[in-house]
Amino acid sequence: MKHQNIWRMLTVAMCLALLGCLQAQEFKGHVSIILLGATGDLAKKYLWQGLFQLYLDEAGKGHSFSFHGAALTAPQQGQKLMDKALESLSCPKDLALSHCDELKGQFLQLSQYRQLKTAEDYQTLNKDIETQVQQDGLWEAGRIFYFSVPPFAYADIARNINSSCRPHPGAWLRVVLEKPFGHDHLSAQQLASELGSFFQEEEMYRVDHYLGKQAVAQILPFRDQNRKALDGLWSRHHVERVEIIMKETVDAEGRASFYEEYGVIRDTLQNHLTEILTLVAMELPHNISSSAAVLQHKLQAFQALRGLQKSSAILGQYQAYNEQVRRELKKPDGFQSLTPTFAGVLVHIDNLRWEGVPFILVSGKALDERVGYVRVLFKNRAYCTQSERHWASEQSRCLPKQIIFHIGHGELGHPTILVSRNLFKPYLPTQSWKEVQAEPGLRLFGRPLSDYYAFRPVREQDAYSVLLSHIFHCRKESFITTENLLASWVFWTPLLDSLAFEVPRLYPGGAENGHLLDFEFSGGQLSFSQRQPEVLMPELGSVPKPSDFQVLRAQYRESPLVTAWPEELISQLASDIEATAEQSVRRFGKFHLALSGGSSPIALFQQLATGHYSFPWAHTHLWLVDERCVPLSDPESNFQGLQAHLLQHVRVPYCNIHPMPVHLHQRLCAEEDQGAQTYASEISALVANSSFDLVLLGMGTDGHTASLFPQSPTGLDGDQLVVLTESPLRPHQRMSLSLPLINRAKKVAVLVMGRTKREITMLVSRVGHEPKKWPISGVLPLSGQLVWYMDYEAFLG
Amino acid sequence: MKHQNIWRMLTVAMCLALLGCLQAQEFKGHVSIILLGATGDLAKKYLWQGLFQLYLDEAGKGHSFSFHGAALTAPQQGQKLMDKALESLSCPKDLALSHCDELKGQFLQLSQYRQLKTAEDYQTLNKDIETQVQQDGLWEAGRIFYFSVPPFAYADIARNINSSCRPHPGAWLRVVLEKPFGHDHLSAQQLASELGSFFQEEEMYRVDHYLGKQAVAQILPFRDQNRKALDGLWSRHHVERVEIIMKETVDAEGRASFYEEYGVIRDTLQNHLTEILTLVAMELPHNISSSAAVLQHKLQAFQALRGLQKSSAILGQYQAYNEQVRRELKKPDGFQSLTPTFAGVLVHIDNLRWEGVPFILVSGKALDERVGYVRVLFKNRAYCTQSERHWASEQSRCLPKQIIFHIGHGELGHPTILVSRNLFKPYLPTQSWKEVQAEPGLRLFGRPLSDYYAFRPVREQDAYSVLLSHIFHCRKESFITTENLLASWVFWTPLLDSLAFEVPRLYPGGAENGHLLDFEFSGGQLSFSQRQPEVLMPELGSVPKPSDFQVLRAQYRESPLVTAWPEELISQLASDIEATAEQSVRRFGKFHLALSGGSSPIALFQQLATGHYSFPWAHTHLWLVDERCVPLSDPESNFQGLQAHLLQHVRVPYCNIHPMPVHLHQRLCAEEDQGAQTYASEISALVANSSFDLVLLGMGTDGHTASLFPQSPTGLDGDQLVVLTESPLRPHQRMSLSLPLINRAKKVAVLVMGRTKREITMLVSRVGHEPKKWPISGVLPLSGQLVWYMDYEAFLG
Repeated sequence: MKHQNIWRMLTVAMCLALLGCLQAQEFKGHVSIILLGATGDLAKKYLWQGLFQLYLDEAGKGHSFSFHGAALTAPQQGQKLMDKALESLSCPKDLALSHCDELKGQFLQLSQYRQLKTAEDYQTLNKDIETQVQQDGLWEAGRIFYFSVPPFAYADIARNINSSCRPHPGAWLRVVLEKPFGHDHLSAQQLASELGSFFQEEEMYRVDHYLGKQAVAQILPFRDQNRKALDGLWSRHHVERVEIIMKETVDAEGRASFYEEYGVIRDTLQNHLTEILTLVAMELPHNISSSAAVLQHKLQAFQALRGLQKSSAILGQYQAYNEQVRRELKKPDGFQSLTPTFAGVLVHIDNLRWEGVPFILVSGKALDERVGYVRVLFKNRAYCTQSERHWASEQSRCLPKQIIFHIGHGELGHPTILVSRNLFKPYLPTQSWKEVQAEPGLRLFGRPLSDYYAFRPVREQDAYSVLLSHIFHCRKESFITTENLLASWVFWTPLLDSLAFEVPRLYPGGAENGHLLDFEFSGGQLSFSQRQPEVLMPELGSVPKPSDFQVLRAQYRESPLVTAWPEELISQLASDIEATAEQSVRRFGKFHLALSGGSSPIALFQQLATGHYSFPWAHTHLWLVDERCVPLSDPESNFQGLQAHLLQHVRVPYCNIHPMPVHLHQRLCAEEDQGAQTYASEISALVANSSFDLVLLGMGTDGHTASLFPQSPTGLDGDQLVVLTESPLRPHQRMSLSLPLINRAKKVAVLVMGRTKREITMLVSRVGHEPKKWPISGVLPLSGQLVWYMDYEAFLG
Repeated sequence: MKHQNIWRMLTVAMCLALLGCLQAQEFKGHVSIILLGATGDLAKKYLWQGLFQLYLDEAGKGHSFSFHGAALTAPQQGQKLMDKALESLSCPKDLALSHCDELKGQFLQLSQYRQLKTAEDYQTLNKDIETQVQQDGLWEAGRIFYFSVPPFAYADIARNINSSCRPHPGAWLRVVLEKPFGHDHLSAQQLASELGSFFQEEEMYRVDHYLGKQAVAQILPFRDQNRKALDGLWSRHHVERVEIIMKETVDAEGRASFYEEYGVIRDTLQNHLTEILTLVAMELPHNISSSAAVLQHKLQAFQALRGLQKSSAILGQYQAYNEQVRRELKKPDGFQSLTPTFAGVLVHIDNLRWEGVPFILVSGKALDERVGYVRVLFKNRAYCTQSERHWASEQSRCLPKQIIFHIGHGELGHPTILVSRNLFKPYLPTQSWKEVQAEPGLRLFGRPLSDYYAFRPVREQDAYSVLLSHIFHCRKESFITTENLLASWVFWTPLLDSLAFEVPRLYPGGAENGHLLDFEFSGGQLSFSQRQPEVLMPELGSVPKPSDFQVLRAQYRESPLVTAWPEELISQLASDIEATAEQSVRRFGKFHLALSGGSSPIALFQQLATGHYSFPWAHTHLWLVDERCVPLSDPESNFQGLQAHLLQHVRVPYCNIHPMPVHLHQRLCAEEDQGAQTYASEISALVANSSFDLVLLGMGTDGHTASLFPQSPTGLDGDQLVVLTESPLRPHQRMSLSLPLINRAKKVAVLVMGRTKREITMLVSRVGHEPKKWPISGVLPLSGQLVWYMDYEAFLG
């Protein structure tokens, strides 16, 4: 007994400290559930049924309940509408009908309509609840407010609840919110901070109903209960790819005004598919019933997501969409919507577990089938010596190995968890999941269903029923915390911004889509498998085609000039560097590359890191063109830029990396430490003839290059290979390769980007060899090649 | 006309210079073909038919021929045996029977038996040829000697030919040799140098009859004629794996005396499969009809092969083999043959094109089917948005993409070249290859045959017919040059040596093999998919099972001791390090880990690199416990071990890696460079209180630890944190953390593994604090914790 008491106290203390949660379950009392928007579509379709289910599950376990359906409608008419919604409540199959009828009668008696419009309405509600609780000799456990209303109504309701409808201290308040939770990072932040001014974080339950789908809700428990088998499999060493898919056959007709504002990424990828992604990818906490641990690990998964680029996505729009938007939104004839109704996105996770594994997210309307699933496909690294005819599905390591969380619909029709028989026999709790036999003829992902262990829920449950139970039992891990929400928007917003003016590929809809929406990934990039079919989109004839984004070749200061839009320019430069690298390695066995710091090269580093798999990094030596006199680990150092955007992602041997020794004997660029001389002799020792294979330079608006500034007393001529210089900008002290050393290179590339460079570009095009005034004009390789890379803005203004 | 003459002259000059080849074709004359071993099996089965085919192809094109069947048998009996072999000559289907009969009559008339035994026999042969040529008013073009005899007879025959049977200068000599060409690198070298004393390289034609198989002979032409399509596909970016397979159903019965000496690797992998490998992997020469270019590129492919290790192969032996050997070789009852009759080998090619692509070579006897093929499987990096039901084999990028050179037998039954329809439509020369339609029901590699473009030879030809034609037309690229042969043995011999005492897995033979011989590869290693089945080999029943491997905890020198089998020990140590790391990062934001070099930690590094996904590498600082005074990039340096086995695989920021500065100012561990002091001040600056979070040590058989050796004048006491020391072993000079510094650590782990450590382990368990004699006994952290990790062999002997 003593121990039990201590345990109870401990539990209560933990709860109060963490989420203010369990005490409700510990000390039973009265619970009021207020459904705002009680006569709306969602309420009719799912929520009342969910509340009824909650009542069925919880009645008789010590709590008492009252259900308040609320809306703006006047009491009488509201009650009518609500009664209509309640009529269709159905009984679960596993409950005796007579018993269910009895409970249904009780539930209807406990459910009342109530107009909630003015501040007074809320005050009255509050008073009524208090009175009722007192009259019945009960004490109040807590209140749940379910916001099944449009987001614009949130603030008003929240204010009223906060000011007039909080239960007495000691009882809990839970408010349940439905998406959309903003439109991008900024709007989500605003909404969150507004709600945050009325509610505590632990009071808010943001619903993503996908987290209530049984196959989705089972992902973490499945990983937990099969830890032993999955421990050796759940990583980049074994997983070939992960597909997270939600295909719909319906289109947006009738909802065009909503859809036009959101599009497929905001509608399903940012929330449902991303949530699933984190459940698959997160590190599994030791105790998955700890909401705090789950939520924390989920957040860590977000932090490991590699930033998306324009090329991480492909977009489509079904052909009829534009007409539907014109009609429903009364747009003029010429109106062209760019809203995507289909998207495929390639996500990479930069941690040790998942690095390099493609996570493919796909969602769209007007597709050939309705289906949702998560498919984890494992690598095939086996050779089976026998002829295929003899392969047995339980033993052959050459048959596909996969785990599928089949969320619903599709050919299977039910939530199902499938594990290839040649992987392992999964454990699922028998009280809630049962093994099912294969239906003959049914195939899934290339194999007959008999190749899988297949499990279905003993009792199929609607997602809202599952979530209402989780709300009641305070299982916060099934909901979106503010941090989680913002992390998701931080991830998606840059992609949404970069795609804002992207023209989606048109598709006819349904099975006729053929292979039009198939796509491929190579490195970090996605692209449609088929080229844009011109026939399908005569009306978009004026949109520039990829061939219009051309890389132009010309001359600048009597040397070759490559000019293009930024993305194409970087892509061309990266390809040219790779070609030079391959040539050098083929000829000399290594490639000596000297890189500049600054912002322009960052895009180049990223491109090299993600798009160039055959780059001979193992044979590449990386040198710095210049460095700021700060510790190497300082975020300001050029080396840190190189580290963060390139070295993190590729495998250059440690000894091939040559940061400038600006930090010796605990001081920065002291003459007496001879850092410049040390670097010079390192170059002389390793680089044949001190002639780099490629030097990448930039150009400042004052005509400086490397860290060689106008009028610099060092580095513009003379014998020194590496020099200390002074910058007009902070940090002033710099180390830099000298012009004479740069000019010994076999190839020099100068990258100039952005409108701010326009003036100096013009000027330098006209001046002669005047390095004292414009150091860049002194770049003229003795026997090597000089190539200028300028984007249109820098070159054409 | 003038141009034609110049062209002819040029051709002749080129030939003389390169291979002494084409002149025969240019200036027609008489050709004598001497088949040595004319009454043997190979001659009966293939060679006479091949010579007849050659006659059919070449008769009437200007050359005249005589065919000499030779053997040791006396003339009369020999002629009889030979006539018997010639009886069964068959006519090709595409030739009118009457015409063939006529040609056959001519061929028989031109073919005569001749005893070749003594030196005089060869002199007579020579005279006879010269006389005949003169009598017929011809001039001699050349002579072909085909050695269809056992290798022990080579030298004698070669000597006789060289001394008495060379044609006059201006006519060519070609000798054709059949494998085996040696047993390993040394014997192949001896044989080659012996033959080299009699023949020029260009005179020798070493036959690998696989190079005459039509699907194999087409590999290079196919790559050449489909360059455009293949250019973008034929590399590690697109190829998932290459399988080169030769399965037989027959066993070695009746040939056990040969087989017992060779085994499957020497019998088929070293030659046939390796030759095919080079044809697939080599860089394609611009002109594939240049034998010199082909042979040179082939040799380059050999040079790029990564060395094989024991773990690159798995071996099997069919159960009946041992009994067959005992019977045929009259071995005693207890005899156990270790000769493999089945092998799977994983080959990696270390060049930019193929790095990381597994080439799987498999061959064996008593398997479930007879088949030979090369399969190039391409990566699947596509997502197909439509349901599988709608995929079309020509368009879907999600169906398997493969190119198969089907050499023969199997379900297809014929040589066939197959290309998945979703790849490209291949070009094959219509005069020799025809497209064939799919036979319904036939599936290949998981797909119906209708998914492929399939081509078969217009006329099927036996490999020897193909090769005899190539010998006649001097197409040296179809034969094994001495360089090629030796390169192959250089590649295979170390593996053969390392496998010499390996026990092959027994298999029942045929379809009953089940999944017993399936294997998997992970990194560079191969292993059977199924554990050794105990039932099949009761004599190996004593192998310990995994549950026997336990981790025990005890005390050693009054500190905690962890002891286990090596694998479990390493696994435990890695987990403990990770736990310490996580704790340090949680508390202090970073983790300072000092690591020792040597071989024991390598397994630990590998374990940390592959098994610990949440290790906080980004916050870990890596220090060296000791270093050899060699350049950091030297394979001997401890840092290189760390680099290769850990740093390559995890993401430690560059600035957190702290190699010891043993190489300063282009010299090693010079006192005046103050490397030790530099490292000491780096430690003082970054590690709070110079107290590492964890120091990992080893222990030498002399009781040394770090690089602190018995009687060391430095490092065992005093104030110095880092010292230069002398090792009794090369390289003598070392840098090391001092004992006082080690003892400041929060935690010290000592890893001791292997039987050789048993004695010192015993000794050190008994001694007190005597660091001068046994430096390891001086390890005693002032306020930290010391833990010993010893495997059973080190601890229990």
